[in-house]
Amino acid sequence: MNDPHPWAVGLDSLRDQVWQRLRRGVADRHDPARHPVLATVTPGGMPQARTVVLRGADPAAGVLEVHTDLMSGKVADLRANPLVALHVWDAGAHLQTRIEARAAILTGDAVAQVWARVPDPSRQSYGSQPPPGTPIDDALAYAKRPDAACFAVLRLTVLAIDAVHLGPQHRRARYTRETGWQGQWLAP
Amino acid sequence: MNDPHPWAVGLDSLRDQVWQRLRRGVADRHDPARHPVLATVTPGGMPQARTVVLRGADPAAGVLEVHTDLMSGKVADLRANPLVALHVWDAGAHLQTRIEARAAILTGDAVAQVWARVPDPSRQSYGSQPPPGTPIDDALAYAKRPDAACFAVLRLTVLAIDAVHLGPQHRRARYTRETGWQGQWLAP
Repeated sequence: MNDPHPWAVGLDSLRDQVWQRLRRGVADRHDPARHPVLATVTPGGMPQARTVVLRGADPAAGVLEVHTDLMSGKVADLRANPLVALHVWDAGAHLQTRIEARAAILTGDAVAQVWARVPDPSRQSYGSQPPPGTPIDDALAYAKRPDAACFAVLRLTVLAIDAVHLGPQHRRARYTRETGWQGQWLAP
Repeated sequence: MNDPHPWAVGLDSLRDQVWQRLRRGVADRHDPARHPVLATVTPGGMPQARTVVLRGADPAAGVLEVHTDLMSGKVADLRANPLVALHVWDAGAHLQTRIEARAAILTGDAVAQVWARVPDPSRQSYGSQPPPGTPIDDALAYAKRPDAACFAVLRLTVLAIDAVHLGPQHRRARYTRETGWQGQWLAP
């Protein structure tokens, strides 16, 4: 059968494709990898999943980056449990990417240079009052007040990648940091 | 400002819209709610997120339904921690739906009538050998062997819904089973 995605047949080319598409997500706001779903776990053990914007992808280091309001629920989750999952479904590539990572929460001086490059409209996302998730009497009883002190970078150190390609035959592979990303086929 | 989604301005109409779209996902395989992301937590505390197919949505009971291979990783996760998150991003409606639920794993006689209605091609998804996630030497070293004994229904009792509408002004509301789904606006 003709498979339009020859990169899916090899472990190395599949892994390279995953990273290429993550980088494309950072560069192109219309790419599917621009808006992954980030899952965290609350202190009570409830998983939480929400859309985030992918801001950085470094294949060599195996690191991804997401920005967030420091007062958001996801930061509270990460303070109790730094483990996260990231999910991207790329319909054009028939590719599901599932990432396991450990998050570090960077703030203040450590991210001042990043904040300096955040354009004004995007700054609206950091520092709303009252903080995200606060109960309010009216739907619009909040204000956006850009505040560098509320800006946080989540640096996600990737621990494992699980990639599933839905082709004429499905293929699934797992890559882990501890095995040097060499890859292992899994039954889909 | 003209908002094309007047349902987003009221707590009741927003909640009804969420359920309407979940039902549409069950009925229409091209709807965004057809393929939510389901997040679980492994026994080691790692969140896991993957695409699933939404098979049932009952607004009156507040119950959703997903089918899975009983040997899949998500079932192993759920045996240790039955709490799940479900995430749908509906680009047309500018609506993010985040659901917290408790999963029950139904198998065997309890789902025999459901299995009887699963069409042949879909049955391929239940009973692959070796089981999903097993390391294999070659990418295609697996076989699909439909097996009723590997078919499980995840009945998801919804505990809370968090809905975010990205309109001219963003609106966010939370609904919980314990408050009778009456809804509470939150700062987005």
